[in-house]
Amino acid sequence: MAESPAATRERLRVVGRRLPRHDARDKVLARTLYAADWQMPGMLEGAVLRSPYPAARITRIDTSRAAACPGVAAVLTARDVPHNILWTDVPGQTSVVGPLRARVQVLADDQVRYQGEAVALVAAETREIADRALELIDVAYEAQPGVFTTEDALRPDAPRVHEEGNVLATWRVRCGDADTALARAHAVVEQTYRCGLIDHAYLEPEAGVAWIDADGVVVVRASTQVIEHFRDVADVLGLPHNKVRVIGPYVGGGFGGKEDVTVEVFLGLLAYRTGRPVRMVWSRQESLLARPKRHPFTLRYRTGAARDGTLLAHRIELTADAGAYAYLSALVLLYATVTAAGPYRVPHVAVDARAVYTNNPPTSAMRGFGAMQMVLGYESQIDQIARRLGLDPVEVRRRSALRRGDRLPVGQALDTHVAVAEAAERAWAALGPPRAPSSPRHRVGRGLACNLQPYGRLVWLRDWASAWVGLEADGSVVVRCGVPDVGGGQASSLCQIAAEALGVEPDRVTVHIADSALTPLAGTTTATRQLYMSGNAVLVAATQLHDEVRRVAARLLETPVEQVALADGAATAGPERRVLLADVVKECARLGVPRSHLGVYHAPAGDPVDLERGGGRVFPDYTFGAHAVEVEVDVDTGAASVRRHVACHDVGRAINPQSVEGQVQGGAVMGLGYGLMEEIIVDRGVNLTTSFASYLIPSALDVPDVEPIIIESGDGKGPFAARGIGEPPIGPPAAAIANAVEDAVGVRITDLPITPEKIARALGLLSGG
Amino acid sequence: MAESPAATRERLRVVGRRLPRHDARDKVLARTLYAADWQMPGMLEGAVLRSPYPAARITRIDTSRAAACPGVAAVLTARDVPHNILWTDVPGQTSVVGPLRARVQVLADDQVRYQGEAVALVAAETREIADRALELIDVAYEAQPGVFTTEDALRPDAPRVHEEGNVLATWRVRCGDADTALARAHAVVEQTYRCGLIDHAYLEPEAGVAWIDADGVVVVRASTQVIEHFRDVADVLGLPHNKVRVIGPYVGGGFGGKEDVTVEVFLGLLAYRTGRPVRMVWSRQESLLARPKRHPFTLRYRTGAARDGTLLAHRIELTADAGAYAYLSALVLLYATVTAAGPYRVPHVAVDARAVYTNNPPTSAMRGFGAMQMVLGYESQIDQIARRLGLDPVEVRRRSALRRGDRLPVGQALDTHVAVAEAAERAWAALGPPRAPSSPRHRVGRGLACNLQPYGRLVWLRDWASAWVGLEADGSVVVRCGVPDVGGGQASSLCQIAAEALGVEPDRVTVHIADSALTPLAGTTTATRQLYMSGNAVLVAATQLHDEVRRVAARLLETPVEQVALADGAATAGPERRVLLADVVKECARLGVPRSHLGVYHAPAGDPVDLERGGGRVFPDYTFGAHAVEVEVDVDTGAASVRRHVACHDVGRAINPQSVEGQVQGGAVMGLGYGLMEEIIVDRGVNLTTSFASYLIPSALDVPDVEPIIIESGDGKGPFAARGIGEPPIGPPAAAIANAVEDAVGVRITDLPITPEKIARALGLLSGG
Repeated sequence: MAESPAATRERLRVVGRRLPRHDARDKVLARTLYAADWQMPGMLEGAVLRSPYPAARITRIDTSRAAACPGVAAVLTARDVPHNILWTDVPGQTSVVGPLRARVQVLADDQVRYQGEAVALVAAETREIADRALELIDVAYEAQPGVFTTEDALRPDAPRVHEEGNVLATWRVRCGDADTALARAHAVVEQTYRCGLIDHAYLEPEAGVAWIDADGVVVVRASTQVIEHFRDVADVLGLPHNKVRVIGPYVGGGFGGKEDVTVEVFLGLLAYRTGRPVRMVWSRQESLLARPKRHPFTLRYRTGAARDGTLLAHRIELTADAGAYAYLSALVLLYATVTAAGPYRVPHVAVDARAVYTNNPPTSAMRGFGAMQMVLGYESQIDQIARRLGLDPVEVRRRSALRRGDRLPVGQALDTHVAVAEAAERAWAALGPPRAPSSPRHRVGRGLACNLQPYGRLVWLRDWASAWVGLEADGSVVVRCGVPDVGGGQASSLCQIAAEALGVEPDRVTVHIADSALTPLAGTTTATRQLYMSGNAVLVAATQLHDEVRRVAARLLETPVEQVALADGAATAGPERRVLLADVVKECARLGVPRSHLGVYHAPAGDPVDLERGGGRVFPDYTFGAHAVEVEVDVDTGAASVRRHVACHDVGRAINPQSVEGQVQGGAVMGLGYGLMEEIIVDRGVNLTTSFASYLIPSALDVPDVEPIIIESGDGKGPFAARGIGEPPIGPPAAAIANAVEDAVGVRITDLPITPEKIARALGLLSGG
Repeated sequence: MAESPAATRERLRVVGRRLPRHDARDKVLARTLYAADWQMPGMLEGAVLRSPYPAARITRIDTSRAAACPGVAAVLTARDVPHNILWTDVPGQTSVVGPLRARVQVLADDQVRYQGEAVALVAAETREIADRALELIDVAYEAQPGVFTTEDALRPDAPRVHEEGNVLATWRVRCGDADTALARAHAVVEQTYRCGLIDHAYLEPEAGVAWIDADGVVVVRASTQVIEHFRDVADVLGLPHNKVRVIGPYVGGGFGGKEDVTVEVFLGLLAYRTGRPVRMVWSRQESLLARPKRHPFTLRYRTGAARDGTLLAHRIELTADAGAYAYLSALVLLYATVTAAGPYRVPHVAVDARAVYTNNPPTSAMRGFGAMQMVLGYESQIDQIARRLGLDPVEVRRRSALRRGDRLPVGQALDTHVAVAEAAERAWAALGPPRAPSSPRHRVGRGLACNLQPYGRLVWLRDWASAWVGLEADGSVVVRCGVPDVGGGQASSLCQIAAEALGVEPDRVTVHIADSALTPLAGTTTATRQLYMSGNAVLVAATQLHDEVRRVAARLLETPVEQVALADGAATAGPERRVLLADVVKECARLGVPRSHLGVYHAPAGDPVDLERGGGRVFPDYTFGAHAVEVEVDVDTGAASVRRHVACHDVGRAINPQSVEGQVQGGAVMGLGYGLMEEIIVDRGVNLTTSFASYLIPSALDVPDVEPIIIESGDGKGPFAARGIGEPPIGPPAAAIANAVEDAVGVRITDLPITPEKIARALGLLSGG
């Protein structure tokens, strides 16, 4: 790049501004029509009958009493579903390699595999009638033995959750010679870590409304991260894809929980069967019970380092509990495998990873998506290496931190700036001088954790996004892009990008998002990909438009096109020569020059590679960061709390620093919940935490002011060199807290969450193991 | 063209099929959500206070009592409207020549100019409260003298409806030397005709719902022919265009009555002021009272012909009553001026046309748009020439009928096939042998009338339309095009065009229409332009897509691209080589080849021409036709009824013959109502016909089976050589009936409608003149 990052920042007029989001006001005023708020004339209410058993055969279903109930419009079971299989691999992709492809049954046929699995659907005039009808459905279950731990599931004689066996995916990495390197290492640390089953715990439950429009198209307006689920609805209904449309309103939290299908297909089935609009809103209990969650992982790390702390080798074994259905487990496991060595140069790495079926709740996408679970492993290990060698935790990280040009263990060379060391130093320094404990029974400790998280999808998936950008007659701008906005400011950022590219103020740009039929498809709002992908697509379209408009403006200004710039809603060629954008648009209309462009952005693409041998690029790029925390532990109770939290990430360029900080703070808080308190407790497949009374999430009292530090390296693959920041901030907190707890009280907690009980037990305050 | 029309017809697989419309079923089942059926949470009801006076000063408006009424959310008067002027010229065009630009006040400021003019708006929790609030608005009017006939309005001392005077537009044509030719003609007929003020009388009244979406965009979902009114709403609200979106649901009849703004701006104002969703539904009374209607014309024709009936000259004076506001009057008058000599070669033509303000209801667009009113003039004249010379009415028409290459009096050469003579012959012949009168007191007569009607907009307006066509992953097709469907099958035809172009069955194509923000703009559903313009736009986009897909298919089939055809959802190269479209799409995705194109069609464009001198092309092209009717007149009562009606038009190519016939039959019936019964009766500006009890429209008993004869010349400027057929069929009926009445009972009725009273008076059955 010819231009320095500072020069670029200076040149940018809209990108980089701290703008309040255009959707913020309505959300604060409770005016936003979320999925459950939509109304249609004659709308029915839908409800789901769910299995009380984690493993059972269904020997009989009798829906006759439910169907006869006054006010009931439809009762559906598996036999009423045209195609009862839902492919839940990678949305929109059907050509990827074997293990990424997985399926679930839409409604349980003759077998249920987890508690809460859907068995039947009802649509009725009111929710009360629907609930009554659910009770009137007579299902005979024959309980079966299940498997409830990955250890049990891997026993040769274990009951099989699926016919093909209980191992659903495996990945291997072999880079260098880990065993030899470990044997020769000065210091070796070996440890097993466990991270728990957790829920997305978003504010807005799964909900939506479906209806059939005047052209016979099944329209589903639902809270979703993936409007491309229109294809799933169509496939299940046996309709061509053109007959289904999914509209995504603003989402009250997704975090991966609305990446797999939730209500969409059920709504489509009920609307199609009844011919009437149907609403479905899941209760919190249903949401906690039945929707796929974060994978619990067992991480076994053996790590070797040189005397000076330089990392030499990792031997890593990863086991993920996939629950009862595959969903995205194979892909989650791949993220874990690729990132398991962390943001460090480690010349010898061996990873063996597997995902295992059990009769526990299914697990799938959640913010961080496999990569975040690894942070506990590699950051606990590096801290223990430093402690063992008596080295400074920052120094030991800096020594091995990845740099541009380095290769990951899977062979991918990093071709953008890598700010790991800088982030670690800045985060650590920002903690400032140590503070005194708040009481004599408190101990204070500090911890650091770095991470890397891919942004953008696996290159094998040949990801793309499209956007349509047009100039209105008055010079204002409309952007259309099929991005679901899950609260991350996805829509708002696109306005800034288009405004920058076309030289107008952001309030002269409107963006319309998330309509699978009417906004150009931009793919899923997952994988920290939307700013990167749809931002680039908007930039492609806006740049085409810019170039056309500029040519016409040059004609009007009688100036060479190179001298014309678009700024402040006008085309200018020096202070004297200026024509309003509205007048340029008028001239375009006269000349028949298009004022609207459909742009497509293609991510770097590649064929599937052999990870074991190391095959080159796996993801388009990665975001790097580091969090530093100061923790206080009550040595009487074992309770740990975070007093300070500094979160530093290189975002390449902050399109809207306020949004970036929001992502960082939100991710840090979720990471804190993951580290300290959140846990779905399952007893032989039965979920004991189906309300927020028992599933604990951080409250305002649990959360310190998270101080974000935004590094803008001016290097990244998104628009204006931005990198994705959606997932990265959730990675470091739990590991940083674990490191800080050891710093405070000298015990290493290896299982998440780090509850008071675990610390107390480690401190010998409780008896038993 | 290399291919003969017959060969083309043979080749086409989907175009030309008689397909039921995809929207028909829901309409029949009353499931279609028309504008008034939409619901939003917390929706208010809007209502309009209208002036009881046709001409008055407003000296005071006090809204305080209304505003204080419980349940009233807003009361707005002119002073609450940010920009109280509505430009109602040619939507989206601001650069046309002077007289096409006109304006109305949104709410009456200090002057009302017609009865029913809007004075204030109310939004309230219920319609009942809104109506009560209307009564509580205290308006003091000072009645003024008005002008209620064009004759009065043209007097030098007449009160001025607008400051600039009462003549709002004039057009002149001078082709050859009409006066000299008339002086030398063998036969000269001179006659004055009058056609009345009529209403569109559609089933669905003006209605809509507006709300502000989560991005702050004002969304108006309204029954409209023009989603481009989003610009008008924005301009009145003082917002940039990107902040307003108009969605057009299926329209229950438009006919030009929903071309000008009706509820859109009022809804936008009320939603923006209250921040809440607002619905507004006009009563039939409001619709008949306040919405612009068809122009009454006075047509003075002096026509000269040679001994053999060859037409030599017309001197024509046209006066149109524009009512109180200009709306589209200047443009309507232009259509009248251009077509006033009919579909005939007339070497010497002089036309003087003017549109005049009065305090009558405003007049504007209605199906036929000035051109249809002329048919009464030129077809009555030619029949009287034939009668005077004792010639056959078909023969005299055939002799002067326009042919390809001929020029209209304004200088435009006709560059497509002209089927006037053929249409006249076929329509006349189809009447078959004469039938006996149904009783001794009945007389039977036959009449013929030909016409021409432009399709597409004035070339000065540089019309364009755009569409976005994409292939889904399964090979199905989605078309997006900003066409409002007003019941003419606009949406359905686009499916057929895309299906034909891409070789798929029409049910594998879905079309999404009429969303100003999300469907590419295609312009107004007016001027018989949509099949022509948006059909071409869809064809442009589908052809781009076809060509891309075919190239990729050729690679897959390992065949030269010329040998690959798309048909039956596959790409084929001979019987042995075939690949499904779904697989081609998959390959496109792999290669990064776009599966979606935005196409733009530009109509022939031209700069404004001097009509008087004759300047070349005025409209892109014209549709020609002829109707023949058999009428029976009761010589005791004067009542005329149509017993047979044959309607023949050259549509170039019938995309869907069933839709074409529907247009022809519907137009013929409207023309019959115009000819025989419809009339808004205004007494000094006060409308006496504000219900369907007094405003008579044809019932099923009044209408014969209209027999359509579709000529497919294979020549036209639309997709697959189609011509527009929306407006043309409304032109001939009234003149054909007038000619038939003279044939039956020997009296020439020159004023529409041809009521029993007028015939009885002409027959001397009634006293008085």
